[in-house]
Amino acid sequence: MRRIGLLTDFGTRDPYVAAMKGVIAARCEAAIEDLSHGIAPFDVFEAAWFLRASAPYWPAGTIFVVVIDPGVGTARRMLAVDDGARLFVAPDNGVLHFIEGAAHAIENEALFLPHGSTTFHGRDRFAPVAAALAQGLPLAEVGPRIEDRVRLTYEPPQYEGDRATGHIVAIDRFGNCITDIERSRLSFKPRELRVREQTITKVSQTYEESGPFMIVGSSGCVELSVGGASASEALRVSRMDLVTIR
Amino acid sequence: MRRIGLLTDFGTRDPYVAAMKGVIAARCEAAIEDLSHGIAPFDVFEAAWFLRASAPYWPAGTIFVVVIDPGVGTARRMLAVDDGARLFVAPDNGVLHFIEGAAHAIENEALFLPHGSTTFHGRDRFAPVAAALAQGLPLAEVGPRIEDRVRLTYEPPQYEGDRATGHIVAIDRFGNCITDIERSRLSFKPRELRVREQTITKVSQTYEESGPFMIVGSSGCVELSVGGASASEALRVSRMDLVTIR
Amino acid sequence: MRRIGLLTDFGTRDPYVAAMKGVIAARCEAAIEDLSHGIAPFDVFEAAWFLRASAPYWPAGTIFVVVIDPGVGTARRMLAVDDGARLFVAPDNGVLHFIEGAAHAIENEALFLPHGSTTFHGRDRFAPVAAALAQGLPLAEVGPRIEDRVRLTYEPPQYEGDRATGHIVAIDRFGNCITDIERSRLSFKPRELRVREQTITKVSQTYEESGPFMIVGSSGCVELSVGGASASEALRVSRMDLVTIR
Repeated sequence: MRRIGLLTDFGTRDPYVAAMKGVIAARCEAAIEDLSHGIAPFDVFEAAWFLRASAPYWPAGTIFVVVIDPGVGTARRMLAVDDGARLFVAPDNGVLHFIEGAAHAIENEALFLPHGSTTFHGRDRFAPVAAALAQGLPLAEVGPRIEDRVRLTYEPPQYEGDRATGHIVAIDRFGNCITDIERSRLSFKPRELRVREQTITKVSQTYEESGPFMIVGSSGCVELSVGGASASEALRVSRMDLVTIR
Repeated sequence: MRRIGLLTDFGTRDPYVAAMKGVIAARCEAAIEDLSHGIAPFDVFEAAWFLRASAPYWPAGTIFVVVIDPGVGTARRMLAVDDGARLFVAPDNGVLHFIEGAAHAIENEALFLPHGSTTFHGRDRFAPVAAALAQGLPLAEVGPRIEDRVRLTYEPPQYEGDRATGHIVAIDRFGNCITDIERSRLSFKPRELRVREQTITKVSQTYEESGPFMIVGSSGCVELSVGGASASEALRVSRMDLVTIR
Repeated sequence: MRRIGLLTDFGTRDPYVAAMKGVIAARCEAAIEDLSHGIAPFDVFEAAWFLRASAPYWPAGTIFVVVIDPGVGTARRMLAVDDGARLFVAPDNGVLHFIEGAAHAIENEALFLPHGSTTFHGRDRFAPVAAALAQGLPLAEVGPRIEDRVRLTYEPPQYEGDRATGHIVAIDRFGNCITDIERSRLSFKPRELRVREQTITKVSQTYEESGPFMIVGSSGCVELSVGGASASEALRVSRMDLVTIR
């Protein structure tokens, strides 16, 4: 079964997601899967990290429609990217930063809804392009190959000897503070984590632990957690805070 | 593939939506699609406008189950409406105000769940009726054709020469204030919009603009937006505020 | 059509649900259905009651993946339960309290994702086990039959003559306070409900009623409701409050 996954910052109260689903349903038989519509408005980085943590689990052939699009209707380009297994359709604003692969600019207007708006390309352009791809349209038909995709101004973590520095990149519903420091890249066993002039030295394998501790989270990155509480609140840590691990 | 779309004010924390989905799944093979469960409790107008903005994009054969139903269990009627392509199942309380077509009162109790409740017709009546329609039941089998559907007490916009008056009908997640004044009905180019003793004169094609401005939104209606902010908060505008465009 | 229903406390903003859906999609053709991801974090009872109110409506063959799992990565067991029609996959922490049937401990590690985490068994263990069951894996293949499932410390309602005592077990989006006292178990017609030193004597069949009243809700249990208001707020009633009906 072909599946099309939707990731947006539209929330679920407005009719935007429902309109996109309708456009897809009208054009193909694919199953429509909600990834999330709860991305913070215009938060391109949040969505990029979301895809990094979830897209690899989907099967070959999946098509993702990613609409975090503050520049809708401007000259910003639209992208379709093939990561070798899955296809991603999104504005060219960095939201596909962590997805590597062949990128095409979406320029084939014949694929768009006729009489479309300047304000809702999710419905008028991305959804019908995704449906066309689901129907077997070759990727090259959406437009020319490009090499100069927009990238996030994101500084990747640094791994140097017995020290790694990175950032808090996400805070989840449970208050866990997720860093971008990958455990598998560390050549040493973490003994202390520093963030906002606080030092955490406890390491746990599970969340059933007391006080603040480090844990390797489900994305393989080091997380900061607090037993029975939100680490973000308890330690006053925010996204993009600098983290050092020794 | 047959699809059944669900629109409710149930939220997603309570088991109500899951029970409705189960009833549908037990009776047909249709794909079950979430439109929204975030309609404000009992807000019939909000759901009616939601359908106006999203239903036309869905393919022929789609069945919508709309459960915003403060009068559940009372003598209020239940409706099934055929708009010529799609079917809508809902209480007769105005929630289908913007859906035109042949309306039938749902009276065929053989279609309902046995021993159903007086408090949850979404599960006990609307869901099984939708599943029966998905299985091919002719619309006339649900009950008699009626002509006196309940309508909203909604005053449509007025278009007079170089002036149009309407209302704010929705405020979206981004704070955009959506009016019911359709751009295609204006015989003039909008120069100023008045709302709550404020006058907006800037017009934009995209949301990348500063200050307050008018923009034709994705439903073809004029919207009021503010660059980088919620127009609703910045201008203290609420749903049902009067709007005049010249 | 085989359907797999998901019930979690993950919320819909984090990538956790999307990762689980991807794992399922990569392993089977089942339709993936959201039951809810809005269960309060770690609230095992809330999810148990949710299943009690919704699972029976789903068809035979449905597989439920239930991930409310504060003990993830600890020695807590994992369960697969067959209620005679549907299958449930969940941690052994009481979340399947109201689901009766043959229980197996999930121990067959060959079913898990390789190199899985200690922090996200929803993705690494429960999802692939559910997909394997959807593909026809016999239940006994997941692990040995067990008889000592973890149960909630939940005191069921007492029915004695013309009196029943129970608890508020859920408060829904509308503020209705749902008790666990089943109307069909009462040998008398309810005349008064006492909760937090307040006595309610009105009984209604519908929510269109004024003031506080009793009503038999959609799960067949007695509810406490207030016309035009949240009963929970108006009467300051909370979950697990004691209720007596005469």
